[in-house]
Amino acid sequence: MKITIFVGSSRKGGNSEKLADFVVHDIEHEKMYVKDLHIRPIEDLRHAENGFQTIDDDYDQFVEALAKSDVVIFATPIYWYSMSGLMKNLIDRLSQAIRDKRYPNLKEHLKTLRTIVVVVGGDEPRIKGLPLIQQFQYTLEFLNMPFSSYIIGVANQPGDILKDSSALSQAAWLNQKLKSGFFTEER
Amino acid sequence: MKITIFVGSSRKGGNSEKLADFVVHDIEHEKMYVKDLHIRPIEDLRHAENGFQTIDDDYDQFVEALAKSDVVIFATPIYWYSMSGLMKNLIDRLSQAIRDKRYPNLKEHLKTLRTIVVVVGGDEPRIKGLPLIQQFQYTLEFLNMPFSSYIIGVANQPGDILKDSSALSQAAWLNQKLKSGFFTEER
Amino acid sequence: MKITIFVGSSRKGGNSEKLADFVVHDIEHEKMYVKDLHIRPIEDLRHAENGFQTIDDDYDQFVEALAKSDVVIFATPIYWYSMSGLMKNLIDRLSQAIRDKRYPNLKEHLKTLRTIVVVVGGDEPRIKGLPLIQQFQYTLEFLNMPFSSYIIGVANQPGDILKDSSALSQAAWLNQKLKSGFFTEER
Amino acid sequence: MKITIFVGSSRKGGNSEKLADFVVHDIEHEKMYVKDLHIRPIEDLRHAENGFQTIDDDYDQFVEALAKSDVVIFATPIYWYSMSGLMKNLIDRLSQAIRDKRYPNLKEHLKTLRTIVVVVGGDEPRIKGLPLIQQFQYTLEFLNMPFSSYIIGVANQPGDILKDSSALSQAAWLNQKLKSGFFTEER
Repeated sequence: MKITIFVGSSRKGGNSEKLADFVVHDIEHEKMYVKDLHIRPIEDLRHAENGFQTIDDDYDQFVEALAKSDVVIFATPIYWYSMSGLMKNLIDRLSQAIRDKRYPNLKEHLKTLRTIVVVVGGDEPRIKGLPLIQQFQYTLEFLNMPFSSYIIGVANQPGDILKDSSALSQAAWLNQKLKSGFFTEER
Repeated sequence: MKITIFVGSSRKGGNSEKLADFVVHDIEHEKMYVKDLHIRPIEDLRHAENGFQTIDDDYDQFVEALAKSDVVIFATPIYWYSMSGLMKNLIDRLSQAIRDKRYPNLKEHLKTLRTIVVVVGGDEPRIKGLPLIQQFQYTLEFLNMPFSSYIIGVANQPGDILKDSSALSQAAWLNQKLKSGFFTEER
Repeated sequence: MKITIFVGSSRKGGNSEKLADFVVHDIEHEKMYVKDLHIRPIEDLRHAENGFQTIDDDYDQFVEALAKSDVVIFATPIYWYSMSGLMKNLIDRLSQAIRDKRYPNLKEHLKTLRTIVVVVGGDEPRIKGLPLIQQFQYTLEFLNMPFSSYIIGVANQPGDILKDSSALSQAAWLNQKLKSGFFTEER
Repeated sequence: MKITIFVGSSRKGGNSEKLADFVVHDIEHEKMYVKDLHIRPIEDLRHAENGFQTIDDDYDQFVEALAKSDVVIFATPIYWYSMSGLMKNLIDRLSQAIRDKRYPNLKEHLKTLRTIVVVVGGDEPRIKGLPLIQQFQYTLEFLNMPFSSYIIGVANQPGDILKDSSALSQAAWLNQKLKSGFFTEER
């Protein structure tokens, strides 16, 4: 089982990353810091004559991480009640990825790719983060990707997530499920 | 009455921009194409010792456009059920703007700044675009900005918005209201 | 084209009913006042040995109205950010209706039944009424019923809907579409 | 600390009631089965000359349960992506309760009344139940009632909630918090 965490924060060791760390505690995984990638905003060429063009940035690393994973975790702080702009630019490029002839099997692979969403915010995120969860749901549904689970954590200051015992207990539950193979066995 | 349209599309003349054009038909306004600005993702320094640092990009143009406007229109295509990454990076920088000592009156000014949201999508946007509207609402509420109105249009191909007579009729209604001073008079 | 309006208000001539009246202006239609029906809350017997039992109330009138209509309009005031309890009790009985052996063709018929939702509320309904619209969407999706359109009106006092020119203009647009056969022609 | 559970199901011992039982395990509490009350749909008389009239049903029991509680738990199955009609009719009567001169202190008391929402559904409730949570949030916000927590459980057959280990672990967490006084201490 290959797990990749996409970290959408502008800070390393931020609250959403920390919460994702609890989810994968004692489980092998890889991390991709979106802030360390050079990812250009998508140029919408779905309807252009020649379609999407290859862009000279780090998008390939993103697509290849998707292609080799069994489980992905999108971990993002909630900025203005949504994912970070860093993460959004990455997600936007999915429109290109699923049409990219260099990755002909990606769309089929995505259907098997269990997704976990971990978000942390400071302003009533268990309520005001719900539209963000709905957007992930619509996105995953469009791609036929299984939406395994999500956790919404509360934190205002760096490190505060350690005080959100509700989120931590949900992370511990998910950790156990991942270890038991719950999300990756045949369904 | 100064009106500024922030265009979040990666294409000029896209459907969301066209729909916003109907809203301001025969009304003086300015346009800011986010794609033409160099806007870096926010670095979250709310809790850093020295706070936010001045970033060498086009963020000042954004803040100054806000500062001089009476009405702003955020026009964005719906990418993956949310605003474009381009637009999101701009919005994220609001966290810096409201703490920026070079613009001490910005927070007060925002409370008077009527906001209109114009979004266009291809996959059932009148339903699946609702979380995006809720996020705008939470954002504007946080900033005490009046959320004057929103329009959700349907379009799949370039130019298709011209076929969405429901969205066009709402734009015409808004246009009339703007001309009559409805949104800008004392309330 | 047979149109039935289900009126969920506790008052006749309420704002949501008035708004629905604009939608069907000069078009033949029938009205069913839920308040005049005797509808018992559903008893959930989906998993009981003998399934749902025939209940001695006016439920049959509801099912028969659905069965003979081509277009239905659910018109309800927004009470506590949701449909009225009167309307909810009616909707709940759909669980029985789609299992009712006395109406074997109902499920198939529903797939052709265009639905329009008209809701009116007093507390920022264009935002705070969105969860209600999402619930209608999930319900109609479950039943494979086409969700043709919805209108959210603003009104606080009886009759106030006449001042919501945005809602009225949307109702006029819908009225024209209904007259032109837009919603009922083959798709 | 007085805790009252309002049970909105049409069945005793249903999944949502069972889940609420875990929340109050080994804690004194009272239960009110809405199905056993005679509650008439609200008649909207907010704008009538004489206001709301006393209705001869069991509404007083509801209001008195609110008035004497420190914590209330609304436990309802998700019917058609919303609370049961039984529960909705009860909630609708809040409009009367907060204007009822026989309970002049109710509005003030509500501001101190911690609320927990426990809902259980069968069709992707962790996503499709989110609009219901948002409606509770808007309702509690309107009344200035603290929204302490919510749990969304998954169950299709009677008793299935016992298999939803995620919901059970959240209930255990809440149970511990209630025992520790977390929700009722000064904030």
